[in-house]
Amino acid sequence: MKKQYNFNAGPSILPQEVIKKTAEAVIDFEGHGLSILEISHRAKYFQPVVDEAEALFKELLNIPEGYRVIFLGGGASLQFCMVPYNMLGKKAAYLNTGVWSKKAIKEAKAFGEVVEVACSADKNFTYIPKDYEIPQDCDYFHITTNNTIYGTELSDEALQDIYNKVGNVPLIADMSSDILSRPIDVSKYAIIYGGAQKNLAPAGVTFVIIREDVLGKVERHIPTMLDYRTHIDGGSMFNTPPVLPIYSALLTLRWLKEFGGVEAIEKRNIEKARILYKAIDESRLFEGPAVPEDRSRMNVPFVLKAEYQDLQDEFLKFAAEEGMVGIKGHRLVGGFRASIYNAMDVEGVEALVKCMKDFEAKH
Amino acid sequence: MKKQYNFNAGPSILPQEVIKKTAEAVIDFEGHGLSILEISHRAKYFQPVVDEAEALFKELLNIPEGYRVIFLGGGASLQFCMVPYNMLGKKAAYLNTGVWSKKAIKEAKAFGEVVEVACSADKNFTYIPKDYEIPQDCDYFHITTNNTIYGTELSDEALQDIYNKVGNVPLIADMSSDILSRPIDVSKYAIIYGGAQKNLAPAGVTFVIIREDVLGKVERHIPTMLDYRTHIDGGSMFNTPPVLPIYSALLTLRWLKEFGGVEAIEKRNIEKARILYKAIDESRLFEGPAVPEDRSRMNVPFVLKAEYQDLQDEFLKFAAEEGMVGIKGHRLVGGFRASIYNAMDVEGVEALVKCMKDFEAKH
Repeated sequence: MKKQYNFNAGPSILPQEVIKKTAEAVIDFEGHGLSILEISHRAKYFQPVVDEAEALFKELLNIPEGYRVIFLGGGASLQFCMVPYNMLGKKAAYLNTGVWSKKAIKEAKAFGEVVEVACSADKNFTYIPKDYEIPQDCDYFHITTNNTIYGTELSDEALQDIYNKVGNVPLIADMSSDILSRPIDVSKYAIIYGGAQKNLAPAGVTFVIIREDVLGKVERHIPTMLDYRTHIDGGSMFNTPPVLPIYSALLTLRWLKEFGGVEAIEKRNIEKARILYKAIDESRLFEGPAVPEDRSRMNVPFVLKAEYQDLQDEFLKFAAEEGMVGIKGHRLVGGFRASIYNAMDVEGVEALVKCMKDFEAKH
Repeated sequence: MKKQYNFNAGPSILPQEVIKKTAEAVIDFEGHGLSILEISHRAKYFQPVVDEAEALFKELLNIPEGYRVIFLGGGASLQFCMVPYNMLGKKAAYLNTGVWSKKAIKEAKAFGEVVEVACSADKNFTYIPKDYEIPQDCDYFHITTNNTIYGTELSDEALQDIYNKVGNVPLIADMSSDILSRPIDVSKYAIIYGGAQKNLAPAGVTFVIIREDVLGKVERHIPTMLDYRTHIDGGSMFNTPPVLPIYSALLTLRWLKEFGGVEAIEKRNIEKARILYKAIDESRLFEGPAVPEDRSRMNVPFVLKAEYQDLQDEFLKFAAEEGMVGIKGHRLVGGFRASIYNAMDVEGVEALVKCMKDFEAKH
């Protein structure tokens, strides 16, 4: 079989070392004679896994004192209701940058008033709105920092602009698809959450970075499992956590540290995105829907130009033969999408570019 | 290293074949050239995994038409609030047989009136109450069929008695720790749920068997992720499911079918429990706290008799040297506990009995 390049949007590529060491742990977890599939989460040798994962997360993102990192099940979709359950007293503000923002907004509306400060639906979410105010009487302001479907991302400048205008309103971010891909000033956030199945772990675990003092301010009853304090107090072990996904997350965090941390991976991510967007911009066949200044470094959608639309299936077939996996575009955008998360190396992106150029040469 | 016998209460022993095949899938999922850690849940070769897991679950438990089997994250603890969220209009009844029942009752109380029909706290939950009525004006009646901590289980006779007196009240059961260990008449239940990390899968996935027509009868707003209909409509794929735990669950279901199904495994479970309880009953040192007629086939707690209490640490040390893993008792019961789930074979139980007898011979 030809070498496979994994451009899946999520669950997605993980470092080979993480895969290899996870497989070893499935056979024998760290020499204890048992599989990681069958060890107790209360075993004295599992607690260090959770502790080290939290510590490394804090180290890599330079998370200040007063924050906890917890690992839960249920995905970011469960966070869409946990956030308002814990945080929405009367009113919250959301920036709508696509499907995942919309889902988060929908859940919040059951808990109080929701102000949608801006929305880029007018151009199918191909840009990040920037001209809006954040109402200062809101319990929080919610953003989605990277939009996998449309290939847009809040740039460092866009984030800085938000930090400047958020004032004293707690900032909450869904960073499912760009966490650990670049440095982030965590001190600006009350909560950062995300499904871990992109830059961090296999499917089945969700991370939440939370400033402890933002909790306990709503009056409603919160079901035990939906209350962040339950999982903070339980150190992610109030109930049985997703053991293997957390262990794989730890392996990824170790890999990232070894790689040089988020500053080093950001450099490579910038380089990968530069190579791929350059190829798209110079292409006779392809074009990218997102506006250049808001382009995502993680998810790169591209479509065939109007006059080449009939080549859709042929390119998918050609790319598959060349070992490109998961590049079919999301149905809301069409065309193609290459997700180039942390674990994708430059060689993988160059292979995709070569594949695009080879295809172009035939047409 | 001496052979390890895994008596963990959960996460717990899985069939060796499941462990081996999961490890293979971590390296290369069914020959697709990608790890199961990095495949998309939307990949055309993952849907059959979910479909076959549901179909095998139905086949093995002889689940009638009108029921669905869904796989979720969050554990049984999340079900403790999902059940009342979806089902409790005004009033629900619960049988209190221990810690897990109590937790379920606590969550339900936020949603309506809860009638505790009976409780065995008076004797530290060492028996299953049988003398109670089920109020016929309740939205449902909830039971915990096996109590891992106290080693009690609702026997077939106890269940039959409940079927006889439940009338038209929907019956809901937490079967986290005895699902698939014996045949169950699923037609008697509205919902059966459980964390899968005992007889079915590694930690990170929860199963729910649900009769579709019991839903949609409460008036409250239900957050999308907590609404069973979301996951039924989405075929367990509304959002990214725990991919690897579901695949391991499928492997366990295949193993169980190959073994001869739940009838065959029940025979072995009866035999294993018989051997272990006989050893406890005949022992000079040990005794079992649970009353004989309510003893669990899955979790066997045993304690040192009063005059031998000082041997606690010595036995734990001795057993560990003999390869017995996870036999320290739960702090609420003390002593020791051997969990002998489906994947534990007779040889494992005999090894434990030999270990107990060897220890006894020294004292």
